[in-house]
Amino acid sequence: MYRTHTCGELRPAHIGQTVTLAGWVQRSRDLGGMTFVDLRDRYGITQLAFNMEVHPELCEQARKLGREFVIQVTGTVVERTSKNYQMDTGEIEVVASSLTILNASLTPPFTIEEQTDGGDELRMKYRYLDLRRPTLKNNLILRHKMALETRNYLSSLGFMEIETPFLIKSTPEGARDFVVPSRIHHGEFYALPQSPQTFKQLLMVSGYDRYFQIVRCFRDEDLRADRQPEFTQIDCEMSFVERQDILQTFEGLTKHLFKTIKGIDIGEVPRMSYDDAMKYYGSDKPDIRFDMKFVELTDIVKGKGFSVFDTAELVVGICAKGAAGYTRKQLDELTEFVKKPQIGAKGLVYVRYNADGTLKSSVDKFYTEEHLKDWAHHFGAVPGDLMLILAGEKDKTRKQLNELRLEMGNQLGLRKKDEYKLLWVLDFPMFEYNEEDGRYYAMHHPFTSPKKEDIPLMDSNLALVKANAYDLVLNGSEIAGGSIRIHDKKLQAKVFEVLGFTRDEAVEKFGFLMNAFEYGAPPHGGIAFGFDRLCALMGGSDSIRDFIAFPKNNAGRDTMIDSPSSIDPLQLKELGIYFNK
Amino acid sequence: MYRTHTCGELRPAHIGQTVTLAGWVQRSRDLGGMTFVDLRDRYGITQLAFNMEVHPELCEQARKLGREFVIQVTGTVVERTSKNYQMDTGEIEVVASSLTILNASLTPPFTIEEQTDGGDELRMKYRYLDLRRPTLKNNLILRHKMALETRNYLSSLGFMEIETPFLIKSTPEGARDFVVPSRIHHGEFYALPQSPQTFKQLLMVSGYDRYFQIVRCFRDEDLRADRQPEFTQIDCEMSFVERQDILQTFEGLTKHLFKTIKGIDIGEVPRMSYDDAMKYYGSDKPDIRFDMKFVELTDIVKGKGFSVFDTAELVVGICAKGAAGYTRKQLDELTEFVKKPQIGAKGLVYVRYNADGTLKSSVDKFYTEEHLKDWAHHFGAVPGDLMLILAGEKDKTRKQLNELRLEMGNQLGLRKKDEYKLLWVLDFPMFEYNEEDGRYYAMHHPFTSPKKEDIPLMDSNLALVKANAYDLVLNGSEIAGGSIRIHDKKLQAKVFEVLGFTRDEAVEKFGFLMNAFEYGAPPHGGIAFGFDRLCALMGGSDSIRDFIAFPKNNAGRDTMIDSPSSIDPLQLKELGIYFNK
Repeated sequence: MYRTHTCGELRPAHIGQTVTLAGWVQRSRDLGGMTFVDLRDRYGITQLAFNMEVHPELCEQARKLGREFVIQVTGTVVERTSKNYQMDTGEIEVVASSLTILNASLTPPFTIEEQTDGGDELRMKYRYLDLRRPTLKNNLILRHKMALETRNYLSSLGFMEIETPFLIKSTPEGARDFVVPSRIHHGEFYALPQSPQTFKQLLMVSGYDRYFQIVRCFRDEDLRADRQPEFTQIDCEMSFVERQDILQTFEGLTKHLFKTIKGIDIGEVPRMSYDDAMKYYGSDKPDIRFDMKFVELTDIVKGKGFSVFDTAELVVGICAKGAAGYTRKQLDELTEFVKKPQIGAKGLVYVRYNADGTLKSSVDKFYTEEHLKDWAHHFGAVPGDLMLILAGEKDKTRKQLNELRLEMGNQLGLRKKDEYKLLWVLDFPMFEYNEEDGRYYAMHHPFTSPKKEDIPLMDSNLALVKANAYDLVLNGSEIAGGSIRIHDKKLQAKVFEVLGFTRDEAVEKFGFLMNAFEYGAPPHGGIAFGFDRLCALMGGSDSIRDFIAFPKNNAGRDTMIDSPSSIDPLQLKELGIYFNK
Repeated sequence: MYRTHTCGELRPAHIGQTVTLAGWVQRSRDLGGMTFVDLRDRYGITQLAFNMEVHPELCEQARKLGREFVIQVTGTVVERTSKNYQMDTGEIEVVASSLTILNASLTPPFTIEEQTDGGDELRMKYRYLDLRRPTLKNNLILRHKMALETRNYLSSLGFMEIETPFLIKSTPEGARDFVVPSRIHHGEFYALPQSPQTFKQLLMVSGYDRYFQIVRCFRDEDLRADRQPEFTQIDCEMSFVERQDILQTFEGLTKHLFKTIKGIDIGEVPRMSYDDAMKYYGSDKPDIRFDMKFVELTDIVKGKGFSVFDTAELVVGICAKGAAGYTRKQLDELTEFVKKPQIGAKGLVYVRYNADGTLKSSVDKFYTEEHLKDWAHHFGAVPGDLMLILAGEKDKTRKQLNELRLEMGNQLGLRKKDEYKLLWVLDFPMFEYNEEDGRYYAMHHPFTSPKKEDIPLMDSNLALVKANAYDLVLNGSEIAGGSIRIHDKKLQAKVFEVLGFTRDEAVEKFGFLMNAFEYGAPPHGGIAFGFDRLCALMGGSDSIRDFIAFPKNNAGRDTMIDSPSSIDPLQLKELGIYFNK
């Protein structure tokens, strides 16, 4: 060992002891007679003192230490004259009696501090230096703890972690696979798993009735901000269970994580149907840290000559509590916001419920104060509130109002980073109609079970069939999703038929799983948590990248290791692969 | 929930309770008035009783149940008249009052029993059925426990599990990489990691001084029996440590696993130098469950007219205790054994130390009984022992004798499956000379540190330089290996020079790691355990395949999912890849 203690460990109780520390030079201050060096490691920072009078040579050496030099120092723990109670080790310092430079360092390209001067790109290229910053360190510590707590909690419930293969088979359904060419069988490929879905269902067939795995998954999608080509899931499956059992088990896991990691008791997680989520929030992942539910006005606003409302399928609004003071300029900005092409509303109607009880709207030409009072009544608005109303085609308008609601939540400070609100969203639609090829697709996947009571609807109205599928939403982000699977052959055949393929085609697409289902598949269902996002949200951040040790950039590149990159021509030859130039 | 209890749970204390069980039909026995069904799940087997008198319809239904049907049964727990104390649930049975067939099953292609009638190939194809067998189930439970114990133990020591990327960069050194073509950047590839070696060293540069990860690794090698293209490692690295710290920490982990998983106290793990391992066992992974050390006779056997010994660089043998009774036929078979092409010895000399004190050898023509007595003295042989001697070129002869020693260990029953002997092998050679291209290669990798005292030898005799590298050996199998890494730039430059490349070439080959080392790399070292093998050995098996849920066969194929396989032409087009037909 190069040290007797870490840099986060020494306290007044150690005063008088001779200790050896090793770490990185965070900064050094030369005060003439004394030189002070802040020595950093994973555990903290300890102040080292070099005395020019007592050890002039040592002190000279200390003065020459650059930032991020790796050093080993032996000395005596003494009480500090000016204590720093902000630091764990702030009551002591180590008066050095020997110093060894274990390694020099070039000057780092950005400061290794909580707040750094390095830009995103630079920090990605020097990720190994960025990882020294306390923010990223604390994120990785959080992630480590989350994984460990998850494993111990699920194991205590009898779940087994079972590793599934990474070199699997490409499936034509779903997102795009990353593929791995076979050297032995030219022209053939393995695929990297988008999730262990089929393997966990096979494990259910095998009788491993409580399975989980914290596992890497891969999707070769065009990347958006905050999407990674490789990401981590807490993947789970259970047999002999109904929906209620799964919700209860994984609500338990979530509670446990909040309790042990954040010290927060999240209580019972509320449940909401997909239909209600869309109706009241315009989103299948509502942020319920704040209320501001949608209020529909369609029936009461028509026939007063305002053609926008008269012709609208839906007139719907939100009430922003206490926002009546919004200026004309602010309201114009909100109008601009909803008219942005990404959102696409045609305009915004507002009604100010002034503090004096009067009402002022952008549609005063068409509606009397009496009308507006009626609206306010519907909204539950009181003087001081601001009502914001959109109109148009139902689904689109809801989505637009969702964006406006979230924006108002941001503007009014209602989306607090340290507040955590969970929500189960249940009963998703089973099928999605694709206009392009005029057929229905499974919204989740074709092994998802429809709700029992909706099975008869499969013969009459597919759009109304609900799946036994569920999402867990945290602060407006989906953190987990899953479903009860089909285990009944007849029902499975029916779903395949509805999706437009024969059993033979199904076997071709889902081959081995279909075969396995012939040998006694138990009733089962599962869920998968997006672990990167869960860590980010629990760390109070929106960026999953800050919770992954070595992430890729938005172009799917690791700029630190410069990957992807060209490979040796010999490797290509061995794989039998050619590229058209 | 489809059940109130599992099939392994009911005991006499439950007698009189109404319970619901769900599981698979293991077997059913029709005894006329009664039908008995053994119901199986992950937790055990419970006997169900159907009474023809009381519930004739139910009993009829039960009689028709096929093997591996999935059923749900409600009934009353009663005391068995003929108890089976071999089974955890053998004192009770459940008298059924209702039966639901949850799923039928085709007749499985082999029996789902401890001993099955299915061949290897068939069981691989139907892996999901093979996984129902108790052997494989117990293996996966062991594996789950091992992983959990490892994580908890290392975490309790302050180790952080940090996930490293799977889509990385191909490196020309080492084994062959699996590569992943980039769709966005045609002609460029990611590579799957052979190990997280460079990333864990980067994490040390980042200050995460205690890292571990249970992680999948990939090697595109021509497969041998019991090698998998994807395998799992317990990968570990520490900073500010010397060899002793690493050995102690991971000896601790190993002890902990043996204690918690097997209930075995393995005590202090002995240490042996590589040179001694080769000298006394002819192997860098000696099986020390039995002694039978090599004894060198070179100096005392020459000059007696036996040209085989006279011209040999090394004459060396083993003493098989109590094996003097070996017949002529058995000795001939041993001779055949060492003459097999894989072993390649020219012949075998034996000396029987008969029970009556006389000695009989295959070289009586050249050596008197007095000579043989002298040999016996060297061997520490006593009447009843058998000495077996090989001669030839030093390294080859040692390897041959290693094979013979292991064979004798097997024949004499000295390699017990339930005995566990660990050994650290230390001080491996730093460099290996390659005859083909007349240069030295790093035996471990070029970041491995030479032993401090051997650094001067790097200017005089490379073959003598020892690396600060170590292996942990269990019952003759390497279960872990690692080294102290170089953190000193000058020493690193020296090693690169010796390996015949300039710093620029080194940067080209090991780019980002070399760059990272410019910014304050701490002294560090690590180790990696082969997790599949560790599980197999602790499970008392030689076959790692039985400890992997979904392994590949010796051709790198997963015959269950039929992978690798051809992919959609559209996928190839998107990747810009062509194959020459």
